[in-house]
Amino acid sequence: MEISDVIKSKCAAVEPVLAGYSRIGDSKTQEMILHPIKAGGKRIRPCLTLLACEAVGGDLSKIMPAAASVELLHTFTLVHDDIMDHDLERRGKPTVHAIWGDEMGIIVGDTLYSSAFKALVDVRKNGVPAERVLDAVDVLVEANGELQEGQIMDMLFEGRESVSEAEYMTMIQKKTGALIEAAVKIGCIVGGGSAKQLGAFSVYGRNCGVAFQIKDDVLDLVADQRVLGKPVGSDIRSGKKTLIIVHALAKAGKDDRRLILSVLGRGDATDAEVGEVIEKLGKTGSIDYAERKVRELTAAAKKALDALPDSEAKSSLLELADYLIERRG
Amino acid sequence: MEISDVIKSKCAAVEPVLAGYSRIGDSKTQEMILHPIKAGGKRIRPCLTLLACEAVGGDLSKIMPAAASVELLHTFTLVHDDIMDHDLERRGKPTVHAIWGDEMGIIVGDTLYSSAFKALVDVRKNGVPAERVLDAVDVLVEANGELQEGQIMDMLFEGRESVSEAEYMTMIQKKTGALIEAAVKIGCIVGGGSAKQLGAFSVYGRNCGVAFQIKDDVLDLVADQRVLGKPVGSDIRSGKKTLIIVHALAKAGKDDRRLILSVLGRGDATDAEVGEVIEKLGKTGSIDYAERKVRELTAAAKKALDALPDSEAKSSLLELADYLIERRG
Repeated sequence: MEISDVIKSKCAAVEPVLAGYSRIGDSKTQEMILHPIKAGGKRIRPCLTLLACEAVGGDLSKIMPAAASVELLHTFTLVHDDIMDHDLERRGKPTVHAIWGDEMGIIVGDTLYSSAFKALVDVRKNGVPAERVLDAVDVLVEANGELQEGQIMDMLFEGRESVSEAEYMTMIQKKTGALIEAAVKIGCIVGGGSAKQLGAFSVYGRNCGVAFQIKDDVLDLVADQRVLGKPVGSDIRSGKKTLIIVHALAKAGKDDRRLILSVLGRGDATDAEVGEVIEKLGKTGSIDYAERKVRELTAAAKKALDALPDSEAKSSLLELADYLIERRG
Repeated sequence: MEISDVIKSKCAAVEPVLAGYSRIGDSKTQEMILHPIKAGGKRIRPCLTLLACEAVGGDLSKIMPAAASVELLHTFTLVHDDIMDHDLERRGKPTVHAIWGDEMGIIVGDTLYSSAFKALVDVRKNGVPAERVLDAVDVLVEANGELQEGQIMDMLFEGRESVSEAEYMTMIQKKTGALIEAAVKIGCIVGGGSAKQLGAFSVYGRNCGVAFQIKDDVLDLVADQRVLGKPVGSDIRSGKKTLIIVHALAKAGKDDRRLILSVLGRGDATDAEVGEVIEKLGKTGSIDYAERKVRELTAAAKKALDALPDSEAKSSLLELADYLIERRG
């Protein structure tokens, strides 16, 4: 089975659970809360939770609300991010705030946030011991805190001329790595994995998450616009300090550097200007550098899984690591 | 000791814990997160948590992060509410979004939200058994979900011409009652109270919370503007469906009803127009009706505490119930 089919079949069981935790309030409220859930997404995080649980020999029937939990938390961040980034569409559909206004967008996000914790706490009802559930809550809480911190760093970086590679890496570890790490750790904890296995999942999840984010930054520059679903170079126009930009600003000569900075963050930059910046990013070797990082991080993620016994779930986790960075848009 | 002094002295120990959970990220981030915490407030919720813990014979030294938790959650709701209500000042100080923009306001609120759960989970580090901690997390999660639901109801009510008293009561039970109930329940649970005591705290907290909210609605109409810190009748201009409005719209004659509806929700209504509406609300007996409700709810709250053994903490809880509704602004 192709890994994309594994994800689909695994997550089929999560969908009704996700929908159940979105059934809050009257029909109008439910419509608003279900909207970003139904808008879809690849469901990578809940799938990671299920696979991690399975890989340590855990009982999948008990863990569904935990898998739903990480997706609810992820969805909450998307709803709020879309307000903060003023994005009116996501995956070709209008965002929550685009339909119902910023005020409702804020509270719909907040509601998904509480549903995430509600779902995770509910695994106790499936007979998972309180100690384990609390460990899992702890992981989600920590990841969540990192996530907000990463988002704040990202926003503050946009206003700064220079950001170091170390600062960038810390930012995406928090903003993207933390929740993917949490997804596998929660699966391992609820499934009854050992401390050693938990450590392995931590390395796997964080590296996969960071690789995924850097790949995203690369795709923003090199992907086919039709596959990407948004204009190429959006990150340049919004002034994002991606690894590629950070690397290029450090390596570029004075003139190239000035050119990059003159376009970065200008929402009204022309396609030609953005194209010129992308050309410079190629010239400084920054896109290649990022691609190399992606491969290294993925290799490290897969290596960490040596700590797990061989199983179908482990094979899927290895394939999933590659799948995350082989996307074309 | 006056109850206001009890609150101050109890909460002195919570302040550094609160500040500790706001110490996130770099100095700029910390400044933004600490801002709404330092802006103050009466600290009624953490005080309720401490008193409930004490009243069931619990160990106060273990519960500080739990007390901080309810205040962090409360502060998060204020930060987001201020964005949604476009309020630029709270307690005479600029709101987070007024200083740093809506985007930062959203993420600062989200961060306080995660800190709330982080703090609560941390009581385990103080030696509180996992079962109890998880029960407390469960209570916070439920309250939190109700809170968002109440906020959505409140927003949807503004767009409706008619709201029943039962609908209004459900809304404020969720929006205001749930977190005050959670504050005492968490104190009781972490302190090791019995199921019977937990039930008593549930009745106490919810009734106190609802009484507090209705009193707030009354004060908006009858308080001295200088004590209130905002213009009298703000709720009328913003179109809030308070108990008083709901009651008046049900009781008023056709002409009075039309007059009330013609001013309700008009942000540019003159003081004279608002004054006329307030006069009608007096004529329909709606303000008296709300005052009576406040007294009944408070009496029911105090009665519930019969289930507790006599103690200094219990006396303070009884006094606190009265204090919450004896405010003048």
